Amino acid sequence: MTFDLQRARQDTPGCENVLHFNNAGASLMPQPVLDATIAHLQLEAQIGGYEAAEHAHSAIEHVYDAAATLIGCSWDEIAIIENATRAWDMAFYSIPFGPGDRILTAVAEYASNYIAFLALRNAIDERVKLIAITHVPTNGGLVNPIAEVGKVARKAGILYLVDACQSIGHIPIDVNVIGCDMLSATGRKYLRGPRGTGFLYVRRNILERLEPPFLDLHAAEWVARDRYEVLPNARRFENWETNYAGKIGLGVAIDYALQWGLDTQWRRIKTLAQCGIVTFSVDGQESEEIKRKLAAHHINVSVSIQSSTRIDMEERGLNSLVRASVHYYNSEEEIERFCRTLASII
Amino acid sequence: MTFDLQRARQDTPGCENVLHFNNAGASLMPQPVLDATIAHLQLEAQIGGYEAAEHAHSAIEHVYDAAATLIGCSWDEIAIIENATRAWDMAFYSIPFGPGDRILTAVAEYASNYIAFLALRNAIDERVKLIAITHVPTNGGLVNPIAEVGKVARKAGILYLVDACQSIGHIPIDVNVIGCDMLSATGRKYLRGPRGTGFLYVRRNILERLEPPFLDLHAAEWVARDRYEVLPNARRFENWETNYAGKIGLGVAIDYALQWGLDTQWRRIKTLAQCGIVTFSVDGQESEEIKRKLAAHHINVSVSIQSSTRIDMEERGLNSLVRASVHYYNSEEEIERFCRTLASII
Repeated sequence: MTFDLQRARQDTPGCENVLHFNNAGASLMPQPVLDATIAHLQLEAQIGGYEAAEHAHSAIEHVYDAAATLIGCSWDEIAIIENATRAWDMAFYSIPFGPGDRILTAVAEYASNYIAFLALRNAIDERVKLIAITHVPTNGGLVNPIAEVGKVARKAGILYLVDACQSIGHIPIDVNVIGCDMLSATGRKYLRGPRGTGFLYVRRNILERLEPPFLDLHAAEWVARDRYEVLPNARRFENWETNYAGKIGLGVAIDYALQWGLDTQWRRIKTLAQCGIVTFSVDGQESEEIKRKLAAHHINVSVSIQSSTRIDMEERGLNSLVRASVHYYNSEEEIERFCRTLASII
Repeated sequence: MTFDLQRARQDTPGCENVLHFNNAGASLMPQPVLDATIAHLQLEAQIGGYEAAEHAHSAIEHVYDAAATLIGCSWDEIAIIENATRAWDMAFYSIPFGPGDRILTAVAEYASNYIAFLALRNAIDERVKLIAITHVPTNGGLVNPIAEVGKVARKAGILYLVDACQSIGHIPIDVNVIGCDMLSATGRKYLRGPRGTGFLYVRRNILERLEPPFLDLHAAEWVARDRYEVLPNARRFENWETNYAGKIGLGVAIDYALQWGLDTQWRRIKTLAQCGIVTFSVDGQESEEIKRKLAAHHINVSVSIQSSTRIDMEERGLNSLVRASVHYYNSEEEIERFCRTLASII
């Protein structure tokens, strides 16, 4: 079956303006996502913010079902959180670490997560309490063997947290195949949702072993003067107020991805590149300078700097990399144009 | 000087559709806020999310200046956070409480904050480490004497955290008049900004006494394998990813409020009610039922339930209240229509 590239590009208004190879930063929203997000903002202005949320109740509830379908879990194992970093934080800081506990991770971790490890280093030492891995790190085409790690974690009975920030909507994900207990994901990257959206998966049977670092009126009910009751599902990791327009847009983005089919998307990405994330450097040229020159040709890329993934970058002797991250709607013609332009500016 | 009600209502598209007395829930966005928020979403779809943020750099930086002007502080004392609850959480959980520390608060606290106190109750006891007060509680027209409390706090050298969620954009606020060290605020209520926006003020000279509960790549830089450096300003309480469209909309909302003038807004609100928040109950009628009946007449109110402000509500023998919260753009005619409609349905 041939991939309907024309339809993918017609659905993506940004294709008219830019050659977008920054999908691992934030992808171009397809028209249905933009329309749903804007429509909800307009409704809020027309009838009120709370009233619009009541009106859109089923679309908002649908986001949980859509996310659950996407990763093969149940709606009550999903929390919608404003981004993957906070989703990861809520999972990580919920784990009751004690002195002597140890965390295992891979080398090419994203800096935000590593900073969290460093902050907790004084509390951890000998015993492995958690395995925390990034599925696809930010600075290269690496795809970590998360299902294999999952088998090890499961056999040893160790908590297992996967950062799927770069892989959600990019590579098919099934939490039962992976065998993870928690998984954090973002909306803006390969899912093509609005900025400021993400979600957290928490396996039902570990919910009671975690202590959410923050609790508010949405996550817990104040039932008596000296007692509160925490929600019986993953929504205990959420908070009361949120950007509902973005949340609804996230649901539409997930539906849109499911319509294409995750396997179809992933096959298409692999015909364009080994993995959506391609990085390179040019001898004697600053990555920022290359990014700037490409931007003058309406070509979007991003730059990965050493402090994002310090250990990996140091070991590879790299200061920075240009990241050209493709998605299924990018065309072969765009890759050719990118290569021609790159050759002409370096 | 007469208040230009006509202009206020012309700027507010929702006035055509609803009689909105739910401004303490979420106010109706004025047209400039809606336009700026939607324009940024469209730009993201047209040129990419990161590229749009670069393009809007000065509008995004302006949000800090606008918030600083609004409350009388400096831009580097402002963190833009997705809502007031998380802003309050980031401040509260940053305080290095120890055994024996005590927190002082007022009775009509909002439940989210009280839940945090309960959760920390085991760690606090004799010594007052913090005074935490809500400026205007959610369930009545009470305005707490925050400047008077500030004098006590300052004299005793105790940290002072003010929840200005219901008062920002409603009652003029100057952090130096209040004498608070931290202040949390939301965008969607009296500031009339988009949902999912808020900010935190942290006085410069207490920054180093606080330990942000979460740190990510935006709040801290990973400078060497075993060391990270935290940002030298209040942005250490933020996180990398955010809803930029909403953030820009918040800046426009603050500018819009400043154009009217906070004193002008507050005077206008006081001609309509003692304070923007008016609550009532009707003997023998459920508050939810009254809300539903009013909604059938396109009148928006909200219901305050006991579990939101348990101690205050229990002491007043109340299960629930109808909350009719007015703003400067509401008209005297709307109040008359509200009273007539209410009389006809009860």
